[in-house]
Amino acid sequence: MKKNFKGHLIVLSAPSGTGKTSVIRRLLKTHPNMIHSVSCTTRPKRTGEVEGGDYHFIDRDTFIKKIDKGEFAEWAEVHNRFYGTPRAPLEKALEEGKDVILDLDVQGGMKVKGLFGDKAITIFLLPPSVEELERRLSTRGTDSAEERQIRLENARHELAMKDAYDYQILNKDLEQACLEIEKILASH
Amino acid sequence: MKKNFKGHLIVLSAPSGTGKTSVIRRLLKTHPNMIHSVSCTTRPKRTGEVEGGDYHFIDRDTFIKKIDKGEFAEWAEVHNRFYGTPRAPLEKALEEGKDVILDLDVQGGMKVKGLFGDKAITIFLLPPSVEELERRLSTRGTDSAEERQIRLENARHELAMKDAYDYQILNKDLEQACLEIEKILASH
Repeated sequence: MKKNFKGHLIVLSAPSGTGKTSVIRRLLKTHPNMIHSVSCTTRPKRTGEVEGGDYHFIDRDTFIKKIDKGEFAEWAEVHNRFYGTPRAPLEKALEEGKDVILDLDVQGGMKVKGLFGDKAITIFLLPPSVEELERRLSTRGTDSAEERQIRLENARHELAMKDAYDYQILNKDLEQACLEIEKILASH
Repeated sequence: MKKNFKGHLIVLSAPSGTGKTSVIRRLLKTHPNMIHSVSCTTRPKRTGEVEGGDYHFIDRDTFIKKIDKGEFAEWAEVHNRFYGTPRAPLEKALEEGKDVILDLDVQGGMKVKGLFGDKAITIFLLPPSVEELERRLSTRGTDSAEERQIRLENARHELAMKDAYDYQILNKDLEQACLEIEKILASH
């Protein structure tokens, strides 16, 4: 990856329930030069999700063809479903000087760091309280007990890797967390 | 990962059928200071495989506890089975000045590169002929048609990521390939 990237590549990871989506939304709003990379997935579209907004929803065969053509910067199979970060739009945006934010789990985050090295800034968003997060994840919403269990398990997996990130930011206050990310970007 | 590693961390990836195992075996034989990291897995032991030699075979609950304690440098779930690289023995060996060779797929290789940065040397071993490899993989041995299909698919996935590696080595001749790896190590 010896490309000439003028923009920042930001990897943001966080356990589910930490407020990552709000942080990204706010950053995009206050930074017209920042874009959010849209991943491809083979999982079915959920109610309210938008093609090209939340994900590019594609079938398994199309996904596999894209893997073989090297069209993903990184991809992973999770519970028999595929998720991948398209390479071309990402590199094009960075070449044009745009900042690109990637919303990835810790395993995907490390892959992107491996591919882009110093050109990728990895930020881990921490919940104000891990105990509180676990309490919320294990009681929240309409999900089945199994889904809650998986979400809790995933949150623990994510937290176990936080030390591998370039930066860790506590998301106690949305505005404050975004300011800290801006400071990081300004220093790069 | 700002640890004081005196040894080299070598990631070797290659499509199935490229002769990676022979290369590793030979390198270990000619380099008493080199060790091969043994992964953990939840998949069942196959005939002829040795606990602690081929893998550490552990159950799912034990694996998940290790994830949560941050005991893996990287891990992945593939077809509902877990594979992971234990962190502690790896770091200990590198601190002691040993060279450690990791035998990983491209996704795992990128994660380790992301975690260890310049301290990891990634090498992709190329088959002398991709066409010949595909022919062999699709006709080889006692496997079912489905297993052959998966192996072929994986080989294509691996090849698609070869450009992400620090070095690519053609494995036309075993001795020659090992010499090239030695040259790479000597230059680091």
